[in-house]
Amino acid sequence: MAPAEESTKFEAYPMKSGDGPNSYAKNSTYQRGIVDIAKEILHKEIAERLDIEIFLSSNTFHIADLGCSVGPSTFFAVQNILEAVELKSQSQGLNSQISEFQVFFNDHTPNDFNMLFKSLPQNRRYYAAGVPGSFYGRLFPKASIHFFHASFCLHWLSRAPKEVSDKNSSAWNKGRIHYLNSREEVVEAYEAQHGEDMECFLHARAQEIVCGGLMLLIVPGLPHGASHSHTEAKGSHEVVGSCLMDMARKLVSEEKVDSFNVPIYYMSPQELEAAVERNGCFSIERMETLPHILPQGTASGAQLVTSHIRAAVERLIKQHFGDEILDELFDLCRKKFEEQPSMYESGMPVNFLAVLKRKAT
Amino acid sequence: MAPAEESTKFEAYPMKSGDGPNSYAKNSTYQRGIVDIAKEILHKEIAERLDIEIFLSSNTFHIADLGCSVGPSTFFAVQNILEAVELKSQSQGLNSQISEFQVFFNDHTPNDFNMLFKSLPQNRRYYAAGVPGSFYGRLFPKASIHFFHASFCLHWLSRAPKEVSDKNSSAWNKGRIHYLNSREEVVEAYEAQHGEDMECFLHARAQEIVCGGLMLLIVPGLPHGASHSHTEAKGSHEVVGSCLMDMARKLVSEEKVDSFNVPIYYMSPQELEAAVERNGCFSIERMETLPHILPQGTASGAQLVTSHIRAAVERLIKQHFGDEILDELFDLCRKKFEEQPSMYESGMPVNFLAVLKRKAT
Repeated sequence: MAPAEESTKFEAYPMKSGDGPNSYAKNSTYQRGIVDIAKEILHKEIAERLDIEIFLSSNTFHIADLGCSVGPSTFFAVQNILEAVELKSQSQGLNSQISEFQVFFNDHTPNDFNMLFKSLPQNRRYYAAGVPGSFYGRLFPKASIHFFHASFCLHWLSRAPKEVSDKNSSAWNKGRIHYLNSREEVVEAYEAQHGEDMECFLHARAQEIVCGGLMLLIVPGLPHGASHSHTEAKGSHEVVGSCLMDMARKLVSEEKVDSFNVPIYYMSPQELEAAVERNGCFSIERMETLPHILPQGTASGAQLVTSHIRAAVERLIKQHFGDEILDELFDLCRKKFEEQPSMYESGMPVNFLAVLKRKAT
Repeated sequence: MAPAEESTKFEAYPMKSGDGPNSYAKNSTYQRGIVDIAKEILHKEIAERLDIEIFLSSNTFHIADLGCSVGPSTFFAVQNILEAVELKSQSQGLNSQISEFQVFFNDHTPNDFNMLFKSLPQNRRYYAAGVPGSFYGRLFPKASIHFFHASFCLHWLSRAPKEVSDKNSSAWNKGRIHYLNSREEVVEAYEAQHGEDMECFLHARAQEIVCGGLMLLIVPGLPHGASHSHTEAKGSHEVVGSCLMDMARKLVSEEKVDSFNVPIYYMSPQELEAAVERNGCFSIERMETLPHILPQGTASGAQLVTSHIRAAVERLIKQHFGDEILDELFDLCRKKFEEQPSMYESGMPVNFLAVLKRKAT
């Protein structure tokens, strides 16, 4: 066992911390909206799929939220799970059995856990713990978690594939910052990285979850049959990439843009199915596409989308390009979105939900 | 169950965060020295007292360090416990039984968990989690912890007793900031607060620990028979208090000093014994005074003692008096210690160690 090695193996891309105007906390209404949509499904799935044996084997129900960021979405998700488990427990006449809940909030080590802890709901009915580390490695002891939740995090790869930043590779992604609509070799490099990452993810979770335990994944992905190299989902990366290239003549060097690649991959439901099948430890209990929503707020659509993108990728861009370009970059992005609203209206990823269940060994 | 109510009930006094020259991380060699002294005792106690049933009932051994601050002392303590448990397990021929460790690092919510997580040892052989909240309330599910460690934290009360800041109370602590060498009424108010706090502490732990589980406490206290109102242990509070009074004529108002009281209480081994007896759930397996040590470092003794005091109480003083007095205050303290080295040489608290074991219910 080497639970501590993750920090040398994986890169960390925490969301923008604190609670300022550009923070993730203030710019995650989109994620929150999806969590709300998933609530009903969650209740139904827990009612129907959660084995009664789980309630009988432990006094405490252990929930883990992977890629929790700083809240508040994570608190709503956890509350939904807790209520659904309580309802199920009551419906089975097991009120006295599960008396306590322990919730593990996981994210990368550089995540702002201080803020997460300060924001924990005052009236929570669970014992809270923070768990730092990449979910592509082991985070928990064997068979210690009853329910995993991972919403809007599995599209983050453990790293961008190395080849795409390598001048001497055929997969060099010159002039672009992402694989979408890029050359076939670039797409393949991202696909390979994603395949490896999903293998690590499912392998780790299969050890950590109890038999019969459930895992709810909400994944921003591509619809079935969509081609990565000719997708309509131009969306955010295309825009951020083109803005960076525009700026390449001024504030940043073209070389710097060439060596930057966003470690995000939009899998399809079929790719998830294939990964689960290869892993062999889980059954897929449910898989469906969620309704399309847009970030909510009083600002313009272009501003809201830009703020959400900024909250998610600001740290990543800052690491590579430095602070000074941030305001100009995202101002440029907002203007592009304003000029072409179709870029964010049609270009948002398609979110799908999957419920997996740990098979008995 | 209301695990979340602590934040409204208890005050929080985290150590000075970050890793700057005045940080706790850089000014805890004293605590580290005590952890080293306790190592041998820890190994012996775990070898002799830890029930074999504990190993047979779980694949994972759960350790909690209460009042962990930001490290590095907590990491040394945890490593000592882990090694002792492994040795015991091997000596019983149970190598394959306990295969994993999960360690919960607890401190007040405003503690710098971000720094703690970043400092986690790279080569650790345990799954780490941070648990925010006061240890005077519940922190963990029932019967979920096998070993509790609490070093240099039980002298922090949940709050200073209210009466001592109340002008209309007979326990008003005018012109002083602590109960040591103060009037009998003030000492009694502190004693009562400490009694309540210990009741809460032991009640919470008795629920959280498994039967047969061990708790190691290292407590800076007063020797048996020492009188709180006429102690020789003038030490730090006396000096800080007198410096504040000196400053009262300049930077701070006398009233402000009158309403400030350090929420620290030095219990005696006998007071701990009495509290354990009242609680009824633990047996005392060992209790002994630890050798007297002084903070280590290349600076002068007066400087080292001042730095250690500052790391521990700076936030508390800042909350009450503001930032601006800090440098002058601790400069004044250092000078007083330099003039009278006996104040810190004889005035350091006496540390004692206690090993408690959870009785079967």
